[in-house]
Amino acid sequence: MGSKCRTCRGPAIIDLPRHNANFCAEHFLELCRRQVKKAIDSFDMLVPEDRILVAVSGGKDSLAVWDILLDLGYRADGLYVGLGIGDYSDVSAEHARAFAAERGLSLREISLRDDYGFDIPTASKATRRVPCSACGTSKRHLFDEAAIEGGYTVLVTGHNLDDEAAVLFGNTLRWDIDYLARQYPVLPARGRFPKKVKPLIRLTEREMAAWCIVRKIDYLVDECPMAVGNKHLAYKAALNEIEAESPGSKASFYLGFLERMAPVLRASIAARSDDADDAGDGVSLGACASCGAPTPGDVCAFCRIAATSRAHQPVSVEVLLGRRGRTASVAQGSPS
Amino acid sequence: MGSKCRTCRGPAIIDLPRHNANFCAEHFLELCRRQVKKAIDSFDMLVPEDRILVAVSGGKDSLAVWDILLDLGYRADGLYVGLGIGDYSDVSAEHARAFAAERGLSLREISLRDDYGFDIPTASKATRRVPCSACGTSKRHLFDEAAIEGGYTVLVTGHNLDDEAAVLFGNTLRWDIDYLARQYPVLPARGRFPKKVKPLIRLTEREMAAWCIVRKIDYLVDECPMAVGNKHLAYKAALNEIEAESPGSKASFYLGFLERMAPVLRASIAARSDDADDAGDGVSLGACASCGAPTPGDVCAFCRIAATSRAHQPVSVEVLLGRRGRTASVAQGSPS
Repeated sequence: MGSKCRTCRGPAIIDLPRHNANFCAEHFLELCRRQVKKAIDSFDMLVPEDRILVAVSGGKDSLAVWDILLDLGYRADGLYVGLGIGDYSDVSAEHARAFAAERGLSLREISLRDDYGFDIPTASKATRRVPCSACGTSKRHLFDEAAIEGGYTVLVTGHNLDDEAAVLFGNTLRWDIDYLARQYPVLPARGRFPKKVKPLIRLTEREMAAWCIVRKIDYLVDECPMAVGNKHLAYKAALNEIEAESPGSKASFYLGFLERMAPVLRASIAARSDDADDAGDGVSLGACASCGAPTPGDVCAFCRIAATSRAHQPVSVEVLLGRRGRTASVAQGSPS
Repeated sequence: MGSKCRTCRGPAIIDLPRHNANFCAEHFLELCRRQVKKAIDSFDMLVPEDRILVAVSGGKDSLAVWDILLDLGYRADGLYVGLGIGDYSDVSAEHARAFAAERGLSLREISLRDDYGFDIPTASKATRRVPCSACGTSKRHLFDEAAIEGGYTVLVTGHNLDDEAAVLFGNTLRWDIDYLARQYPVLPARGRFPKKVKPLIRLTEREMAAWCIVRKIDYLVDECPMAVGNKHLAYKAALNEIEAESPGSKASFYLGFLERMAPVLRASIAARSDDADDAGDGVSLGACASCGAPTPGDVCAFCRIAATSRAHQPVSVEVLLGRRGRTASVAQGSPS
């Protein structure tokens, strides 16, 4: 490239159009650490005393956030949940284990199939939910459970700026006021449940890939095969086109929302529940009859997915996606 | 196509994926009229007694909205403002005049160059503003002036769903709360100033083009040459891609905003001005020293543009765009 690091004028390894600058490896890492610190500080995400559990998928974001937090001096263990998505899950587990082993870190492991008797492809088929929905519900439940069992104060996930901006984009396209009002990078602790934070909200996918490359972290590059073609990825693509035209748009969309729109929405929700003479979010929670987790019904969403999926014969991801692929090609070939 | 009209099962001339249906010419026109009626009714845009002035550019939207309003029984005259944008303006004027003449309608004409001593290319150069900004300010001023002089109660513009959704998209990407709070298809009358309404907010560009084709309205197809490459068109393109993936997204984005988000924003702005012990929008307006229009300063924005532009030698659109084209090609050729 011949371009120079903004900080030291040495040879640059990455250009960041959003910052209108190039950086060498050392000062790129410094920029990433600074952005994570800034996110942690502005949203009171972590204190040095926290016992942190990082949800690790074996992809770039979760390994990078674990690495950065350790680098910044935090105490953080990892948690890997095996989702049973064929080769994708097998390979992702290897990456997570290798990262932890090479650094002598503690990695807790849970297997949905071995420990709970089902997997995500089967759950998707059995519950007729889109895979990402069954998967999200399962992960949230298992992350909470593991954090409580291990006595962790905070659960960290590797959601980055692209992830959060894409979710915001979807919620905005639908003007889903309740979802918008809840979109925030910190969820406070509630009862036994740990605080949940997203320290990578000021960094992009591309930056996290670069972090891993510079730090020689071997991560799983592939997207989850079950996510291919979902709306989340379409929203990311739309935002990437806008970003390419006007560098900085994505960050200003997401961070501008947090700064200017989120307070308006929270005030509006608060006013609404005042009007309703209602102290909390208006829903009273009991304990799940099966696992004890708080739920508005008798049995929590995870235990319902688990029960339905365990009663179903196992479905492999190959069979599930094969069927999908066939449906898609028929639809394309049909006269319109 | 072989597809059938949803209403009469006759041969369809247009498919509307958003409505998941096809329509023949007659029932397509009926759908358009129904959508305009629905917009007029839901936002109290017009009453039968109104004296309406339609701002006509010679493009599909403004000719269609004039046609539809007459069709629905309203009394509406046209207003054409010559902006001095070379051939584009000459041809657009011919379309507006032909439409009015063939139907025996009254079309008021204003020429920025002849009546005010400048044109948009010159204003853009002289004021160093992007052309669409100088043009918008000028049109708003001249529309108001013409409506007041002619004793009209309502000014109608042909802004369609694509236009409004694209503006909303831009304001949302920046989370510009004040602009968002003001985005509404009706602006009430204020002092001598007419009410302003946008009856086409439930219809798309493509539908308005189809309306004109079916009704044999000869409109100017070209986009304004000065708008090419602006962000508004990029936002339209982004929304069109999302719409292609999920038909109905664009309408639900814009109409969902009006239904669910606009009330939250208006309540928030009202609460803010209550807090500030401030009755109105916080800005006191005097009369422009030059034209008498209300302005927060001594001279209104239009009269300032006019004064600066009149002092500048005339710039043709060809010269202005020629320069732009050259700059763009140099930028593309430069090493990054």
